[in-house]
Amino acid sequence: MNPTLSPAERIARQVEFIVEVDKLKEIFRQTVLTQSRRAENDAEHSWHLCLCVIVLAEHANAPHLDVLRVLRMVIIHDLVEIDAGDTFAYDTARMAGQHDREALAADRIFGLLPPDQAAEFRALWDEFEARETPEAKFAAAVDRFQPMLLNVRTEGHAWRKHGVTHDRVVARNEHVAQGSQALWEYASAMIADAVKAGHLAP
Amino acid sequence: MNPTLSPAERIARQVEFIVEVDKLKEIFRQTVLTQSRRAENDAEHSWHLCLCVIVLAEHANAPHLDVLRVLRMVIIHDLVEIDAGDTFAYDTARMAGQHDREALAADRIFGLLPPDQAAEFRALWDEFEARETPEAKFAAAVDRFQPMLLNVRTEGHAWRKHGVTHDRVVARNEHVAQGSQALWEYASAMIADAVKAGHLAP
Repeated sequence: MNPTLSPAERIARQVEFIVEVDKLKEIFRQTVLTQSRRAENDAEHSWHLCLCVIVLAEHANAPHLDVLRVLRMVIIHDLVEIDAGDTFAYDTARMAGQHDREALAADRIFGLLPPDQAAEFRALWDEFEARETPEAKFAAAVDRFQPMLLNVRTEGHAWRKHGVTHDRVVARNEHVAQGSQALWEYASAMIADAVKAGHLAP
Repeated sequence: MNPTLSPAERIARQVEFIVEVDKLKEIFRQTVLTQSRRAENDAEHSWHLCLCVIVLAEHANAPHLDVLRVLRMVIIHDLVEIDAGDTFAYDTARMAGQHDREALAADRIFGLLPPDQAAEFRALWDEFEARETPEAKFAAAVDRFQPMLLNVRTEGHAWRKHGVTHDRVVARNEHVAQGSQALWEYASAMIADAVKAGHLAP
């Protein structure tokens, strides 16, 4: 806790942060939902990742994964897109400069919190981006797995729309194996099936 | 782990559960978003609660809150609404029979998981519903606080639409204090201000 802010002052700042991040529900992605086939937004995606984490944590390579730390990363990992926008995983042009745009967004958005919490959330986001700890590797694995799964279950919607091929899907997602070998084996078979079904170009 | 299922068989069942709960993104609530003013869905709501938990946990009455347990409850607390639908907090007619409808839904939806995990998730949902442990009380507190906050920041949208009055908001939400006295103090002042602003009927 920061000694210069009272609990009431802390709540006031925390609530402004909670209101600001309501905007994550308006940031739309390239993946579509299995039912209505409308575009998924970042808040729904972030919740779905949380769900994946608690369901799939047993398959992490790391034997003693800190699941709370993974969840904390996953909950906040896309907040920077409120300012920086979503970058499609296969849009290599837009990926240039992505980290710089997002770091500026992190300064502003996490900066709404009390200073100690702003630093804590920023450190979590930096950890997620660096993808070096077991927790960050597993968070990144589910962040790549969930969109692949939605694509497979919507006949390759985003892949077909953007002409993405099997080799690019493998290159972009094979780091799933760094977080979970078992999950990458499942995903590899799943995308091979998508090629056979004609939902992903070979 | 259940000894009768291999890791590959477990992943296969877990993935079917993850696909099934994609439907939570299609269950719409009475609250609206601060930006576009469209109805919020249960997946976005669940993510926003996760965010509230990690931001506001310091204000829980319980000195040593198990934050991971709170998050696990919050992530899954509304899955039953995939079958049972959303029940508006002030719809007393529809609240009759709500728990029975939701318990049937819990049987079906959690039953998609491997048996050990199905039992674990069901126990978490039962704990949330019983609202007896410090973790369940705090989860329930943020589950009541977040919709009040969205109502206040949208000029009382859902309250005005349904003719909800200040005394009913207090009666329905005062159990926030069981999870966090500090949060209920903030909320009490916030809804008093909403009355003054003409966004909530006295």
